[in-house]
Amino acid sequence: MKTVIKSPTKSVNIGPNEPFVIIGERINPTGRKKLEAEMMAGDFSRVLRDARAQMMAGAHILDVNVGVTSIQPHKTEPDLMIKVIELIQSVTDIPLCIDSSVVPALIAGIKVAKGRPLINSVTGEEERLEAVLPVVAEYNLPVIAISNDESGISYDPRVRFAVAKKIVERAETYGISRDDVIIDPLAMPVGAVRTAGADLFTLVRMIREELGCNTMCGASNISFGLPQRQWINSSFISMAIASGMTCAITNPLEEHIRNAVYAADVLMGHDEDCMRYLTAIRKADAGARAAASEASGEAPTADAGEDRRAAREARRAARTAR
Amino acid sequence: MKTVIKSPTKSVNIGPNEPFVIIGERINPTGRKKLEAEMMAGDFSRVLRDARAQMMAGAHILDVNVGVTSIQPHKTEPDLMIKVIELIQSVTDIPLCIDSSVVPALIAGIKVAKGRPLINSVTGEEERLEAVLPVVAEYNLPVIAISNDESGISYDPRVRFAVAKKIVERAETYGISRDDVIIDPLAMPVGAVRTAGADLFTLVRMIREELGCNTMCGASNISFGLPQRQWINSSFISMAIASGMTCAITNPLEEHIRNAVYAADVLMGHDEDCMRYLTAIRKADAGARAAASEASGEAPTADAGEDRRAAREARRAARTAR
Repeated sequence: MKTVIKSPTKSVNIGPNEPFVIIGERINPTGRKKLEAEMMAGDFSRVLRDARAQMMAGAHILDVNVGVTSIQPHKTEPDLMIKVIELIQSVTDIPLCIDSSVVPALIAGIKVAKGRPLINSVTGEEERLEAVLPVVAEYNLPVIAISNDESGISYDPRVRFAVAKKIVERAETYGISRDDVIIDPLAMPVGAVRTAGADLFTLVRMIREELGCNTMCGASNISFGLPQRQWINSSFISMAIASGMTCAITNPLEEHIRNAVYAADVLMGHDEDCMRYLTAIRKADAGARAAASEASGEAPTADAGEDRRAAREARRAARTAR
Repeated sequence: MKTVIKSPTKSVNIGPNEPFVIIGERINPTGRKKLEAEMMAGDFSRVLRDARAQMMAGAHILDVNVGVTSIQPHKTEPDLMIKVIELIQSVTDIPLCIDSSVVPALIAGIKVAKGRPLINSVTGEEERLEAVLPVVAEYNLPVIAISNDESGISYDPRVRFAVAKKIVERAETYGISRDDVIIDPLAMPVGAVRTAGADLFTLVRMIREELGCNTMCGASNISFGLPQRQWINSSFISMAIASGMTCAITNPLEEHIRNAVYAADVLMGHDEDCMRYLTAIRKADAGARAAASEASGEAPTADAGEDRRAAREARRAARTAR
């Protein structure tokens, strides 16, 4: 059970024995009017800033969605997808996730993306299955499968499991292996559906054990409508990881989500010597120090060997605690 | 699988279908020199402050430990335990957890505690089993069972499971039911033992499924030696709850732990209409507003119906998101 996504030089493995994979969600004009207007005007400076910021914050893969809904998607999306992917690839080599509801845009993106991008997404709808799976099979790519179908998103987790199973089995008829299907079992807002969290955790476990597939989901829909969503989001992603979820499309710029993922990796035993956790914490501390010293006019201190020393010290301290 | 702890007027149920139970850890002089000195001098004002603060922060049960190690525990602990329990009971009726390694102190505490206190603790050591279990059986009380024995704390989770099983089976020979044994499978520091988190989650699940017992643990030992421990602690407790842990001895005054528990309750479906989460968030917001208005000299605003209104609004907002 391992899904491999690649750029020309980088390979990201998604699986139960790997660190959790963050797919950065920010390159998406949905609900971002400024970004949409800029994309339509051919200004991609914000796209590049979003790409850099998400990579700095720890994204392993970048989702690329160019769904500018104000204009006819079939006419505009393929060309926009090509432009944005080429632009991102001109400045970085992070693996990509090509995100569109427009099949020609997916195909256009696949043709210019270097490496092995992830395709986002197929659903259980007949029309979608028959349009997307042949493309995924032809280019031998991994795909995200969302567990809704013609009847919508069922409140009943057994129905969502059945939809996931149907997609996986249909994909197999196209020669697409279970390793290459990442299921999104869909997290409902827990403020409206009391069992939304528990259902999601059960589905993640069932899909892993019974279908042998990786799972993912958006990490913030769960908290929709509730105040101080960071507490729900960070507990949710930690609990989903404990239940076996292996990646998420989310915003790594949100401190609580990012740190919950780093912490969960440590707690799953997927961060050797806690090095990534220590580096992330130190980076955040350095950022705070830099901001403080900028305010006070002093130069911040830095030390290249500090991460490794901190790791050694933590191990030593922890050993004495046993 | 339900453990019932009682004061004269309150009943706390610990179990898989109940909200997570926080046992406040603060009334404990271990590592708190001031508190120890005060206890020895007969000054219990800090104990009362700690009791109130923990209850305000959401503790469901208060742990009472009077282990002033500087003087002979067998001589001092029983009398101190009686004094502290009587004092706490004179101002509040929260259920109690009697915490001592000195059996006469446990018995002294049991005799003055009203309701049905929790006993903390028995281990797998022969001497301890034969000293504590008869007392637990005689008074028909629930007990915390820590999975170490004469050989210490094993790094091997299978050994810790075997110790837990031994205690549960021995307790049964005394007529103590599995409902009344809460297992602490022991969380090692993850900075020293890479598999500490994953092992704990596995043990929690195994103990629940194979022994039919509730589980608990201290929530902060896991992060010993690491920086910014709040991120590890809050992810850890969320993940342990997702794995089936039903209570913890911890510090509810720590914002990240407290909010992780409230969020995890919502996500497990154990907080109807998110009422406790909303109340806790609102209380924290009101505290922040009060502090701000105190600084600015203005009176804070308050509204008794606001919690329920916020809950209704959240549900409505969430419904539109589906």
